[in-house]
Amino acid sequence: MSDPAQDDAHLTEDDLIARYFRPLAGEGAFGLRDDAARIVPGEGTELVVTVDTLVAGVHFFPDDPPGAIGRKALGVNVSDLAAKGARPRGFLLSAALPRDVSLRWLGQFAAGLKDAADAYRCPLLGGDTVKTPGPLALSVTAFGETPRGAMVHRFTAQPGDRIVVTGTIGDAALGLLLRTAPGAAWTEALGVDGRVFLTDRYLHPAPRLGVVEALRAHAHASMDVSDGLAGDLAKMCRASGASAEVDLALLPLSEAARAALAADPTLIDTIVTGGDDYEILCTIPDPALAPFLDAAERAGVRATAIGSIVPGDALPVFRDAGTETRYARGSYSHF
Amino acid sequence: MSDPAQDDAHLTEDDLIARYFRPLAGEGAFGLRDDAARIVPGEGTELVVTVDTLVAGVHFFPDDPPGAIGRKALGVNVSDLAAKGARPRGFLLSAALPRDVSLRWLGQFAAGLKDAADAYRCPLLGGDTVKTPGPLALSVTAFGETPRGAMVHRFTAQPGDRIVVTGTIGDAALGLLLRTAPGAAWTEALGVDGRVFLTDRYLHPAPRLGVVEALRAHAHASMDVSDGLAGDLAKMCRASGASAEVDLALLPLSEAARAALAADPTLIDTIVTGGDDYEILCTIPDPALAPFLDAAERAGVRATAIGSIVPGDALPVFRDAGTETRYARGSYSHF
Repeated sequence: MSDPAQDDAHLTEDDLIARYFRPLAGEGAFGLRDDAARIVPGEGTELVVTVDTLVAGVHFFPDDPPGAIGRKALGVNVSDLAAKGARPRGFLLSAALPRDVSLRWLGQFAAGLKDAADAYRCPLLGGDTVKTPGPLALSVTAFGETPRGAMVHRFTAQPGDRIVVTGTIGDAALGLLLRTAPGAAWTEALGVDGRVFLTDRYLHPAPRLGVVEALRAHAHASMDVSDGLAGDLAKMCRASGASAEVDLALLPLSEAARAALAADPTLIDTIVTGGDDYEILCTIPDPALAPFLDAAERAGVRATAIGSIVPGDALPVFRDAGTETRYARGSYSHF
Repeated sequence: MSDPAQDDAHLTEDDLIARYFRPLAGEGAFGLRDDAARIVPGEGTELVVTVDTLVAGVHFFPDDPPGAIGRKALGVNVSDLAAKGARPRGFLLSAALPRDVSLRWLGQFAAGLKDAADAYRCPLLGGDTVKTPGPLALSVTAFGETPRGAMVHRFTAQPGDRIVVTGTIGDAALGLLLRTAPGAAWTEALGVDGRVFLTDRYLHPAPRLGVVEALRAHAHASMDVSDGLAGDLAKMCRASGASAEVDLALLPLSEAARAALAADPTLIDTIVTGGDDYEILCTIPDPALAPFLDAAERAGVRATAIGSIVPGDALPVFRDAGTETRYARGSYSHF
């Protein structure tokens, strides 16, 4: 065990699981010593299940900190559960690892994953490790629980509903731009704090579990914003047979995003269409708006009404001081 | 829609899901129009969950028939459920697709997947499609159901238990050899029918759902044989704190495997250690052996007692006419 390189070469799947993943295992995982895991559903509940795969070079940078990749792999799935009104119960991880993955990388990745599992009370239940000649890929299946019949859908927005988003929009897309086009003029306007903030928002989704109960109590429809606000709102509208109007002046922006936008007003398109926000986009019937916003505030989650669902099948319109924009290809699509 | 190549280039994730995967969607999938799926557990049941990833060039040949790949991706997971005593409820598919994947390939893959989903009563509940610069990879998460507390584990074999396997062992490993070393002398002894049979056994796992109830009623421990009998039995013994003795003369072999072995007796090692059997390996207390074998026969599943669990922590021993073999690296490990 003194030579890490040799270690790597001889690490069996069992060794790898015991060393890095057993510490994350929860009830029903049987210490990762079985071929499948068990979930005992609570009385009167139903399970909400979702899967998201992250591929190196597509969904994250291969040189992102391994711990951040671990947190993100679970975070993006827990964000889906939160948007459906579900509390996390656990997750399965399928990791496709290139032969040259190092023990150091795996250790830091597993530590980040454990941070997230602890923070979201979402333990590892089981999984699978395979070798791949391609890029590293992480497939997480997350399980959540809701009272029976309480899951909140994407396709149930109704004309008249107010459109609400949590947190701030566009930070992660700007954080990604900082990585891919670091020399742009607007980045100078940010200062170090702003750059660190936006970079962190790209690396670290913050699933909005604080509003799970409020969503179940008040929302007609809900989804998380992962592929850009414009594209995801268009998806929600298409699925619901409706359209939407958004007032860009109401869009919640971070201080850093405001500074970036002041330096380069064309960044509004990046903010509205860029991906990786992992905020919640939901629609609330007008009489429930105040109770929903109150509940979010009590949970410490910023929530902002930005527009309304309207009848029709047009693409959502984004209004700003007399201009109207419909984003025909509004969604950043990983496919 | 007249130019398939152009079609490919412009296929959005939504188009792809609608065209190829919506026909597979079951209850709780909401027509694949939501971000997560719902599973309503039966009264007094628990869920068994498992994930397996197949990577092109590692777990299947890129030029295998796409329909066979689809059937196998689900079959290997349903085999895990069956071994745990669980009836399938549904699955999630995460597909990482290279940019050059063709519509023709996807159509045939989805058709094979649908065959399997129908055969195992295991509908598609949801999933995820991503682009990858690497090889095609398919990650299936399967959900099964057992009465509460009835899941059969890997780590509960007890000294004195009889070791039972379903079907025949080694066919898939020989089928793989036919692909990788087609000119070997033993292949001549097979005839066309034998070669077709073994190739088919490699391509098409046959999950043994027929013995699910019998396993729950009678087995102390159970797992599916996916990484080779020797290695998987060693895993079961290690997890259970026991050892095992197998009588090779009792090993159930197909007619084709017998012909191969007669032509080249060294193939016994391939048969015992090769992967992809997807048969069930279980341990049955001696008084329950006859009832278990009867139940399997009534279900149309061949089941054969091949040895016993014994005390100790030695590797399982395989005996044959005076020789004893312990397979130190008995398992074909994909990792």
